[in-house]
Amino acid sequence: MALIDQLIEALRVLPGVGPKSAQRMAYHVLERERVGGKRLADVLAQAVEQIRHCARCRDFSETEICAICASASRDAHLLCAVESPADRLAIEQATGYRGLYFILQGRLSPLDGIGPKELGLDLLDARLAEGEVQELIIATNPTVEGEATAHYLAQLARRHRVRPSRLAHGVPLGGELEYVDRGTLSHAFGTRSEMP
Amino acid sequence: MALIDQLIEALRVLPGVGPKSAQRMAYHVLERERVGGKRLADVLAQAVEQIRHCARCRDFSETEICAICASASRDAHLLCAVESPADRLAIEQATGYRGLYFILQGRLSPLDGIGPKELGLDLLDARLAEGEVQELIIATNPTVEGEATAHYLAQLARRHRVRPSRLAHGVPLGGELEYVDRGTLSHAFGTRSEMP
Repeated sequence: MALIDQLIEALRVLPGVGPKSAQRMAYHVLERERVGGKRLADVLAQAVEQIRHCARCRDFSETEICAICASASRDAHLLCAVESPADRLAIEQATGYRGLYFILQGRLSPLDGIGPKELGLDLLDARLAEGEVQELIIATNPTVEGEATAHYLAQLARRHRVRPSRLAHGVPLGGELEYVDRGTLSHAFGTRSEMP
Repeated sequence: MALIDQLIEALRVLPGVGPKSAQRMAYHVLERERVGGKRLADVLAQAVEQIRHCARCRDFSETEICAICASASRDAHLLCAVESPADRLAIEQATGYRGLYFILQGRLSPLDGIGPKELGLDLLDARLAEGEVQELIIATNPTVEGEATAHYLAQLARRHRVRPSRLAHGVPLGGELEYVDRGTLSHAFGTRSEMP
């Protein structure tokens, strides 16, 4: 197979890239972005080789312990459990949260063979047993599997006398009631709070 | 900068990839496609290094002369001029054309500093002077610049007593008249042909 066809095929490992866009990417890089292409190849090779999981939080990291876990300025009493590194990044960018994270790298899904072990819950168990964490903020997605995972984590936390908490559900800011799904609306209605 | 952030930034050389999708791609590759990611890095490095332009047709090629130009089974009397390798591929896949190609790698655009030299027209001139080509099929895009390029190429062909031809313009098959743009419709109306 010609090198260019190999390149087009190789580009398809990227999510959302089909044959047409892989072709467009290959031609674009060869025509106009040789330097950037070389850099992408180098960084990608390095990343795939060197990036492993942080031994404390399971986030991606080049070092044994990631920068957040290693930071002395974060509040070690707060631990926030998320499903993925992307969720960790979203919280980090949107909120002023200064505690630590635990990245599950998935959610409980027995049918797919994803149990407590795959989510590193033995590691979380040991972490909570250390006694430093006072609150476990459970920020799994509000899906069926995310909720099941949240309940499991809450039990785990209680067993170690750690307070479990869950992100608030409700009508999104700037959203219109008319377009909010029934489940969310019903939940928001039921958990309404008195106005000050 | 952390390696993962470098990777996210490097991915943005790909066309149509913004910060959000670059992030999604990086996480996806690290989470699920390490082997494919390694392969992409290798092939991309090789491609950027080794793929050059064919000395005869200017298409991308790892070899001095590309596979199509080197093929003995193609009809050397027919030469089809296209703007890009992607156009060449589209014609190759859609039609039964068995002649050769010439890839301009652009179109005449004096304001952007793209003149006959940038399109390799000296190479095309020498090629037509060889006397083997009988028809130059001009398949530049039907844009203002593509048309200007087509006229220039037609003059060049006539100077060498080579017959220039142009792809037919008209209503696309399966299209609806109502939605065809005015220029195309007017052209198709003017160049209507008698039904057999």
